[in-house]
Formats: sequence, C-alpha cells, structure tokens
Amino acid sequence: MDVTTPGGEPVVLTRTRTTRTTSTGTAPARPGREGWSVGVDVGGTKVLAALLTADGAVAGTHRIPTVPGPDGLVAAVRTCVRTLAANHGLPLDALSGVGVGVPGVVDPATGSVEHAVNVGVERPFGLADAVGAALGGGVPVRVENDLNAAVLGAAHTVDAVPTPRDLAFLALGTGVAAGLLLDGTLRRGARRAAGEVGHLTLVPDGLPCGCGQRGCVEQYASGRALQAAWPSPDDRPAPLVLFADAAAGDVRAVAVRDRFAWAVAGAVRILVLTCDVDHVVLGGGVSGVGEPLLEAVRAELERETSGSSFLASLRLAERVHLAPRDVPVGAVGAALVGRGEVV
Amino acid sequence: MDVTTPGGEPVVLTRTRTTRTTSTGTAPARPGREGWSVGVDVGGTKVLAALLTADGAVAGTHRIPTVPGPDGLVAAVRTCVRTLAANHGLPLDALSGVGVGVPGVVDPATGSVEHAVNVGVERPFGLADAVGAALGGGVPVRVENDLNAAVLGAAHTVDAVPTPRDLAFLALGTGVAAGLLLDGTLRRGARRAAGEVGHLTLVPDGLPCGCGQRGCVEQYASGRALQAAWPSPDDRPAPLVLFADAAAGDVRAVAVRDRFAWAVAGAVRILVLTCDVDHVVLGGGVSGVGEPLLEAVRAELERETSGSSFLASLRLAERVHLAPRDVPVGAVGAALVGRGEVV
Repeated sequence: MDVTTPGGEPVVLTRTRTTRTTSTGTAPARPGREGWSVGVDVGGTKVLAALLTADGAVAGTHRIPTVPGPDGLVAAVRTCVRTLAANHGLPLDALSGVGVGVPGVVDPATGSVEHAVNVGVERPFGLADAVGAALGGGVPVRVENDLNAAVLGAAHTVDAVPTPRDLAFLALGTGVAAGLLLDGTLRRGARRAAGEVGHLTLVPDGLPCGCGQRGCVEQYASGRALQAAWPSPDDRPAPLVLFADAAAGDVRAVAVRDRFAWAVAGAVRILVLTCDVDHVVLGGGVSGVGEPLLEAVRAELERETSGSSFLASLRLAERVHLAPRDVPVGAVGAALVGRGEVV
Repeated sequence: MDVTTPGGEPVVLTRTRTTRTTSTGTAPARPGREGWSVGVDVGGTKVLAALLTADGAVAGTHRIPTVPGPDGLVAAVRTCVRTLAANHGLPLDALSGVGVGVPGVVDPATGSVEHAVNVGVERPFGLADAVGAALGGGVPVRVENDLNAAVLGAAHTVDAVPTPRDLAFLALGTGVAAGLLLDGTLRRGARRAAGEVGHLTLVPDGLPCGCGQRGCVEQYASGRALQAAWPSPDDRPAPLVLFADAAAGDVRAVAVRDRFAWAVAGAVRILVLTCDVDHVVLGGGVSGVGEPLLEAVRAELERETSGSSFLASLRLAERVHLAPRDVPVGAVGAALVGRGEVV
C-alpha cells in the first residue's frame, strides 16, 4: 500500500505555469526548490499526497492507507510530508507550506476540523496546529475541506477552465458533493455547507438515504449507488464493469448506465441553474471511467435540452468536463492551499 | 393607476443608516439632498419607483402601468424619475443616480438588456444610455437584473440579515427565481443565469412548464400555480384567499396550502444545500400573505428536518424570512444600484 513515485520527470500541470522543473530524486536541498509545497488529500480509505513545484508540476506522490482518528490523521500527514521531502532532498523548512484536504467541516482560519466522520474526527480538532507541531514547527500548515481543495486543483489542471476560474468540482465517489469556485473565489458557504447537492431530492419518496431523507441525488449518482446497481464480478471497479458491459450491448447495463447518467445530469443542472457555474468538472472514483462517463452525461443533458429552448440556452453539455486522470486533483489543490493560494 | 405618495415623513429603512431625513413635499432643491437616488423596478404589469435618501429612507414612491417595449420602458422610467424629483423639489442633476431593475439578462457594465420577454425587450437594447438621454444626460443611470436589485434591497431592509450580507431573495411571483448575494457580492452567474431555481425539477414527469420541461419548481411554488390551484372568487389575490380558507379549516385549502409550502420549502432547500446562503428572503406577490406563508414554509421545513439530523444541522427554518411588506424592496435595491452600490 505504500507507493512512492520515483523522483523522475515530474508531471507538468498544463495550466499553472509554462516552465518545466526537473527533479533528481534524493539529492540534497539546493537552489531552485523555492516555493515547493506538499498537499495531502485525506480520504476514507487512503491518504494521497503530492509534492508540487513552484511552477505547478507534480514532482512526486505518496500514498498510504487511512488510519482513522486525530492521531492517525496527524501521523499520516507527517509520514507523507517527510517521505516526499526526503525523496527530493528537501529539508522540511524549505517547503513553502503544507496543505491538508479533509472531508469534514473545516475552519480554514484556525485549521480546525470537525464532523469528518469518514476519517474518525467528529469533535473539533486543531489539525493544522497538530500537524505543524508534528513536523517540528518550521513549515506553515493550512487545512481546507477536501472538495474545496479539489476544486482549486481542478481549476489549475483542467484546460477548458479559463481565468477567472468559475467552476464546480462534482465528486462522484462514495457520496456526491461539490466544491465551488465562483469567479475565482471559494464558496464555502455561510455554514460551510455549500455544494451539498448529494442530499437534494432527485426522486420524491425514492431510495432511503443515510442522511434520513429519501430519494437523494447521492442514492442514484454515487459510486456506491452504481456498485449496488451493478456489482463487479471481479476486482475491477464496478463503474468500469458497468460501462464496459453497456458498451458491449448488455441491455440491462445500458439501462443502469443511462439511469446513472440521468442522475449525474440532474446534479449538473442543479449546480448550473442555481449557481450558474461556468464549468462542472466530474471527479471522484466514478470519473475513472473517463470519456464514456462524460459522453453518457453529455448525451443525457443534450436529450433534456432538445425539448427546452431555455435549457438549450444554458449550454449545459458544453460545461461538463472530466477531472484529469493523471493528476491527483485533490492533493494538488491541497498543495496550492499549503502554499497560501487560498481564494 | 398613477399613485404618488405624498412627500411626508419618509419610511426609514431600519438597516441602512440611523439618522432620519424628513421630506417636505415640493419645496425647491436645497442642501441636505446630496446622495439621493431613484430606483425603478420594472415588472410585467407595473413599474414601481422609489426615491431613496442618502440615509436609506424612502422619501416617496411612484407607480405606473408597464407599457411593453423599449420606448414604453424608457418613457416609464423617465416619468417616474421626473415625477419623484419634482415632487421633492429636486433638479434631476442633483440625483446621485438612477437605477433600473429589469426582469431580463442585463449587462451591468454597459446597461444593455435582452431576453426581457415580460416587458417586451428581447434583442439587446441599451437601456441605460436611452434612459440617460431621455433624462437630459445629467444623471448617471445604471441597470441591473430585477432580482439582483431585489436581493440588494432585501439585504438592506431585512433586520435578520447581518453584515456581511449573505442571502437569497426568492421571488414567488408569476414565476419563481432567486437573486443571490454571497458574502456581500452579487452572484450574477457565469452566463447571468444564477438563481434560476424555478426551472429545476421538483416532480419528475410532473406538470408541463413553459420552459419545455416538466415538473419544474415554478409549476408548484409560483403565484400562478397557486392561482390555478385555488382561484380567487372575487378581487382578492388568490394567495390571500387560499391562506384564509385554510385558516378557516377548509380541508381542501389546507391540502393546497401545504402542497404549496412543500414546493417553496423545496426551493429553499435547493438554495441552501447548493449555495449555503445564510438567509432566504421570501418575496414576490405571494409574500403579500405575510406571516401565515412564513409559518407554513417553516412548518414544512421543520417536518422534513425531523427525520434527518443532517437537515436539522442546517437549521433551514431559521434561515427563512419575509420581505418587508411596507418597503418596495425591488425599487429600493434599484435605487442602491443607481447610487453605485453595486457589489
């Protein structure tokens, strides 16, 4: 489970800067490393970290399993940061900052986290301070909600998104929720609940949801919903199996795929008609399906649009994009947070 | 139809300033009138204008019927501005500005309006320039979407809304749509379509909507929908009749009222779970019902919340308020736009 990318040629993020930076592995710290930061994306099962160069290239990544609870979280972040820094010959205090994206309610001013149920942190916990202490106090640590970090990462890595960046990052994972960057500014929400579109009603009196309601978007548009509707017969992810079976002409698979695309399209419509975000980037585990997912969602949006000149004028299908598959968007966004690019 | 309020004691908006300004009718221009502006709220049936003092008091209002089309619109705005200024002894060039709220797609930078179907302006029309010329060129004219103006007006007049102002103005009129002020900044949307929650689906395969879709929020939560479900037997507005009949114990009226409240609550949930606005102010014609409307919507939100700790944590019912009945929120907001308070 402990995978570290070699310190070879970094993946250059197409949007952020134009220059390339090369990395030479475990050489000692030297000039040219100013402005590098580490981003750590904490999920329910894994912690994924990225070392970002000043010009926005991913110099390396590190991945370890999640150990729930405050102590496990701090230890995981520390391990990731130390490993990435050591692999690239960087003393910790040479980093411009460390950013952590956490699936919970975050106060970015204090770095405190609460209601992060999936990672075992329920009561308010001063994550930024604890990580800062664990790293020896020499590097600034900033914390952000994971989807807010992800939308920043998507804004910097999706070619279709121009400046000022105006987009939603729609995570199709275990659950469904969005991060919002409106006219270049993070919309966290008055009570840090913006983007909770997964718990809006899609089907009145529909499937029961863990939130206590029925028929929530999440019950139809999430990876978990897809897995329940089309379980994988082997170790391939269920979304890949479903889309492959549908492409092969399995009529039932086509119906399940189209129903899934209908639900995702519903979430896209909610985001556009409410916030009028210029772009919606599909992310989360299901986005690993790639182009076939994008095509199915766009086809559904086009179908709905064909009967409504109002919807047609909104050009919904054009606004939808895929998160890049070769860039860890959440970790990159956390690294941007870490170096102080909070907006 | 031509009603002008006398130039007596102005209505003081509780939020904007603390000092009072008195108005003495048609006296000639004199010191103490600096910073006054006129706001004109253009609707499908009426044009309502307000003269706003520098300290946020409404010194007078003027109301005339709408004459559709560019020429009718310009003439109506000119009439309103001249009448209010003359009634208060103000030369036009003493005004700090004129603001016009229009139900259409507005470019606030140029003052151009299009797709304002209800007022007979479909193709791009330079309204700000035309009104400026009609007024003799001595006063700045600014144009804004009517709901954007209304949310500014609501932010300045609803006591419950603190600074920074974070709210939606949910108009329950002929249609349903919202204006959004997020953290003190107008959210117009990437394509000026923010707040179009009236055309999100509330009932899959439900009532046909003029937009070409079925089951839109607007088919259940608008004044028109209410009128269709419970037509007025006399010249009282249908919403008042429905709520009175329900209060008197008419079982069918109770069912129609509760269904209406359910639909409005649906729009509130969409706004809060997507944007997480701190407050939702109910406006538009139906809000003339007053407290019974607010009670019905809050009761529905409480009912939904009782089964979901997630919804309960969002405190939806607390966030809902009524637009003030004694202040023309749209015209006041337009006057704020007119004096350059665009955010």
